[in-house]
Amino acid sequence: MSDLKCDEIVFRPIGRVHHEAGGVPRHWSVSEVEGELVLDPCYTAGLGDIGPGERIVVLFHFHLSAPFDPALLRQNPPHRDRDLGVFSICSPRRPNPIGLSVLEVMAIDQNRIRVRGIDMFDGTPILDIKPFIATATECPSTDRRDET
Amino acid sequence: MSDLKCDEIVFRPIGRVHHEAGGVPRHWSVSEVEGELVLDPCYTAGLGDIGPGERIVVLFHFHLSAPFDPALLRQNPPHRDRDLGVFSICSPRRPNPIGLSVLEVMAIDQNRIRVRGIDMFDGTPILDIKPFIATATECPSTDRRDET
Repeated sequence: MSDLKCDEIVFRPIGRVHHEAGGVPRHWSVSEVEGELVLDPCYTAGLGDIGPGERIVVLFHFHLSAPFDPALLRQNPPHRDRDLGVFSICSPRRPNPIGLSVLEVMAIDQNRIRVRGIDMFDGTPILDIKPFIATATECPSTDRRDET
Repeated sequence: MSDLKCDEIVFRPIGRVHHEAGGVPRHWSVSEVEGELVLDPCYTAGLGDIGPGERIVVLFHFHLSAPFDPALLRQNPPHRDRDLGVFSICSPRRPNPIGLSVLEVMAIDQNRIRVRGIDMFDGTPILDIKPFIATATECPSTDRRDET
């Protein structure tokens, strides 16, 4: 397994988060902050099926996090009285600093998505946007040909 | 925005998916495939609070996907009769080829997590593991100090 760390995987931002809130809550599930996901215009055609009221999964880069350190394998999250493993919490300091937020779409205009529930800093690089799926029937490739 | 593509973000696998199924379903939500997430042993301490019955979010690299091409901004998913934007579907061919699966933990032994619901190829590089959270009360940093 020790060869794993030699395998570099390179991604590039597809856009950035923009908002004017002075601060953001610690987690999307308790956030009412509104702002915009501004994508590179080259991706506009890929946003055409996202609509108001929808929940989307936004993957992003915790670009301001200090590098991971083995001492952070267990961390004490806010409001908890004991350490938890990094893979059981949402800390921005993790082996690969990828964040995941589930945001509500308010509106969409070309390459700009107005969203609510932001817990990222202004300027955060966006890596991907996916549909929020909790069950099989919500999967976009589920057979809907019988639906009217 | 055109400077975005110059910003390289480098991640490294923390482990790999292993299973012996001949094939995998198109999506975790319809998969009964079992197998293991085998992490680099250096991360074992970070797995200590994951337990059987739990649902975890696994972020991974679609390492076998061909490079993204603008013609793929809209794609026709299986069982759908029209093209959809890439950010509304789970296609492995996306600007940043990051996959997201929600898997059920069957058992855990040191750096190996037995899971059900696999839709990744054997050997897929794992980028991150997070708790599955749909609501505020499920957030690991929610105040639970009043709980017994």
